[in-house]
Amino acid sequence: MDQTPSIVESRPRGGRAARQRQRAAGPTAVIAGAERQMPAYEILGEAGLSQIESHADRILREIGLEFRDDPEALRLWREAGCDVRGERVRFEPGQLRHILRTAPAVFTQHARNPARSLTIGGNSVVFAPAYGSPFVSDLARGRRYGTLVDFENFVKLAYAIPWLHHSGGTSCEPVDIPVNKRHLDMVAAHLRYSDKPFMGSVTSESRAEESIEMARIAFGADFVDRHCVILGNVNVNSPLVWDGTMTKALRAYARANQCAVVVPFILGGAMGPVTNAGALAQSLAETMAGCALTQLVRPGAPVIFGNFLSSMALRSGAPTFGTPEPALGSLIVGQLARRLRLPLRCSGAFTASKIADAQAMSESVMSMMAAVQCGANFILHSAGWLEGGLVMGYEKFMLDADFCGALHTWLKGVTLDENQFAMDAFHEVGPGKHFFGCAHTLANYEHAFWDSETADNNSFEQWRDAGSLSATQRAGLRVTKLLESYERPRIDASVDEALLDFVARRKSETPDQWY
Amino acid sequence: MDQTPSIVESRPRGGRAARQRQRAAGPTAVIAGAERQMPAYEILGEAGLSQIESHADRILREIGLEFRDDPEALRLWREAGCDVRGERVRFEPGQLRHILRTAPAVFTQHARNPARSLTIGGNSVVFAPAYGSPFVSDLARGRRYGTLVDFENFVKLAYAIPWLHHSGGTSCEPVDIPVNKRHLDMVAAHLRYSDKPFMGSVTSESRAEESIEMARIAFGADFVDRHCVILGNVNVNSPLVWDGTMTKALRAYARANQCAVVVPFILGGAMGPVTNAGALAQSLAETMAGCALTQLVRPGAPVIFGNFLSSMALRSGAPTFGTPEPALGSLIVGQLARRLRLPLRCSGAFTASKIADAQAMSESVMSMMAAVQCGANFILHSAGWLEGGLVMGYEKFMLDADFCGALHTWLKGVTLDENQFAMDAFHEVGPGKHFFGCAHTLANYEHAFWDSETADNNSFEQWRDAGSLSATQRAGLRVTKLLESYERPRIDASVDEALLDFVARRKSETPDQWY
Repeated sequence: MDQTPSIVESRPRGGRAARQRQRAAGPTAVIAGAERQMPAYEILGEAGLSQIESHADRILREIGLEFRDDPEALRLWREAGCDVRGERVRFEPGQLRHILRTAPAVFTQHARNPARSLTIGGNSVVFAPAYGSPFVSDLARGRRYGTLVDFENFVKLAYAIPWLHHSGGTSCEPVDIPVNKRHLDMVAAHLRYSDKPFMGSVTSESRAEESIEMARIAFGADFVDRHCVILGNVNVNSPLVWDGTMTKALRAYARANQCAVVVPFILGGAMGPVTNAGALAQSLAETMAGCALTQLVRPGAPVIFGNFLSSMALRSGAPTFGTPEPALGSLIVGQLARRLRLPLRCSGAFTASKIADAQAMSESVMSMMAAVQCGANFILHSAGWLEGGLVMGYEKFMLDADFCGALHTWLKGVTLDENQFAMDAFHEVGPGKHFFGCAHTLANYEHAFWDSETADNNSFEQWRDAGSLSATQRAGLRVTKLLESYERPRIDASVDEALLDFVARRKSETPDQWY
Repeated sequence: MDQTPSIVESRPRGGRAARQRQRAAGPTAVIAGAERQMPAYEILGEAGLSQIESHADRILREIGLEFRDDPEALRLWREAGCDVRGERVRFEPGQLRHILRTAPAVFTQHARNPARSLTIGGNSVVFAPAYGSPFVSDLARGRRYGTLVDFENFVKLAYAIPWLHHSGGTSCEPVDIPVNKRHLDMVAAHLRYSDKPFMGSVTSESRAEESIEMARIAFGADFVDRHCVILGNVNVNSPLVWDGTMTKALRAYARANQCAVVVPFILGGAMGPVTNAGALAQSLAETMAGCALTQLVRPGAPVIFGNFLSSMALRSGAPTFGTPEPALGSLIVGQLARRLRLPLRCSGAFTASKIADAQAMSESVMSMMAAVQCGANFILHSAGWLEGGLVMGYEKFMLDADFCGALHTWLKGVTLDENQFAMDAFHEVGPGKHFFGCAHTLANYEHAFWDSETADNNSFEQWRDAGSLSATQRAGLRVTKLLESYERPRIDASVDEALLDFVARRKSETPDQWY
């Protein structure tokens, strides 16, 4: 069993574990990840997958990747026997796979509250909020720049909603805080307003290090050195470029035995070819390289194989999201990740819509279905995403989170046992009668079906008399209620103080930067 | 090759077929069904499927089905060796499967325009509009009873939208027409305002027969006797009851060598057990019996194995739609139908929402994804469904139809060939450049991605300046445009006249009935 950090009560064990865990959780229910209890959707056979892999190998050998502004990364590749010329690194087929053998197929991201620690990999599915929007929006105030208050609101909402297992990272950019100090407030908010696992900064090596340093304050330095407690989401500068900013952040996480999430961002026709097969091969090449780099830094460090495919509007060249091509791509990426035995991050609730309307949910649900069906283990952007990621939407957050709840039911699949087959009920009811009051229904009713928080299933008249609200309006009311009833999770007073002290000290040491 | 009915030009053959077909189609593009080019999503193995089948067999033997008010159906079962006592019929394990061996795994539903004839079965996927709503709604006029004008509008819209392959049946109830005469106007509208395949009435034996008689006017009696040109959607009165009205309509279609679509309607906890496994076994039992009955009437008659599973809101007992349990059920029903080698009808764009909002599309997309992934061949209710089927929505119709378009792309899967892998593009572009102008992008751009008619992928500022419209509002504008630009497909004047004459004559022969 993992060592338990000192600030939280010991992990409940034994028969009453569930009840104890519930009690330990404080105001919100504990769902420590979902488990996919059915096969992933596999649409390609061995031949097709090998073809994609061999094209990735060709890209890696014939063209290679550039690693810019990071001599240490080049040194590591050279030491590993790769062909390094200037900043261009070329790889022999199989070379990256060989390096990746030390990466764990499954690991635990520990939460400040151990009951919320998450398995990353295998059949585990983790839903995390959207990440990185400069703007926020809601029905009442419209679209505007995000602030620290907004950021903290989304941390609180993710804490309050059981279907989101993870606090996420940059839920929105708090643009009222200087660029070089935001990460301090953001990490502090994740640690102080939630006890779910979270993500740190990657926008510079020192910000990554400071994020990890704050995790050490909360979890203890020894614990952090031996356990994953923080993720950093690093992007490839596709096509085929790794920027030093990203590799330095990646190396900081790996060095500290923390998890880098390695994600090429490929908008087909811009940062990659306009055809899916080529984009998939490129994505595989870019991700394998980033994941392998973590293993050169610290063999055995946790790493997540990430993926972000998108398409383009043919009439305008604008990026599109939640479309069928990336959904198909996700299904194949899932197969590729499993062949590498790496945990997978996949697409979330993507949409190009500006508001939480029919387009938003149509696109988001297609994308989310692909993410869970492909076997993704860590689904970033599971809630809130609008406008191609430029906006974090309050109502969208609630609608998406509710859909994550539906996916918990979906992931369970269908149970086949005597109770589920209900032969007694058929005998009791017989032809032409109804099952409402039969013993089997009464015994199973309470947990029989997914029960949405935002859907309206009432009659037209009931719905009209309640104000003819749209789902988006209902979601907005639910957001208000959750924020009003929010209660902070317990935190040791000395840890809380140490975090605030760290933030204040670091902020005072450097002048503000606003861009 | 099938004999071509006399009223349309002969079926295009040879190399220029596509162009000729396009020309023959008149004002709207021809997409004669979609083809699923990837495996269906199979979530159960042999053991699980056998368990469901054996429970269906137990229901059929231990409890049996009631066939009410149809002595001829009972006679057919008795003759087939089943255990008939009163109206209760019990079946030995395997008995229905044996009878079903004569049902075709694949057949063609012929359209008035042969270019629009559809393959039903195999990997073919057909999208048909929603069916049976008494109400219609749109943003401008709200919710109201449907009329013949509304009905004709939906026939015109289904004709105008290439992603809907089928004209459907009772797109909405034209409640301004007497109950006993509606079918005449509805079938006339399908034949006169569209040239896509369609469905006839099932609300009485004589209405089914008159629907088929009108098809004979359009296609020729000989042709109809040897080819499927009309479908009739017959519901089981679940649990375990077949009403005479339905079996008489089913027998009328089978007698005429036309296709019955056999559909149990199981709202879990009401018309079936509250647990999925039991509902699936029940559904299998009920559908097999209906399908088998068609084969007793006329061995070899086309029949579609249908399915309609739904769940319930735990707090109110209200039916819910587009929820995860029926989506899972669909995936399994697909596996069961393939084992029977029968074409499958599955769930469509279901929702309990009163309006075409975020809830509507969230639920509809989950349901539609399950329908295409389970391998369904005929997806009724693909467009327009609102409020649990009580309402046919104009904007919802457009949003759903657009999503059917996205599914066409999805169903194609990912092509793996030299062009798709784009190695030349990688060599041309290299690290850090973009793919916008490269030769491969220019050559592939035009058909690279699905292009939605209702999504807005523009910038926030463009969207705002265009009026900040929701997807539902944009869909409404598109509906207006399609109806304004609608042009009737060609029809032989004598056929047109004969249809109108038939309708007028039949209407004059009986007094109006309004309920």
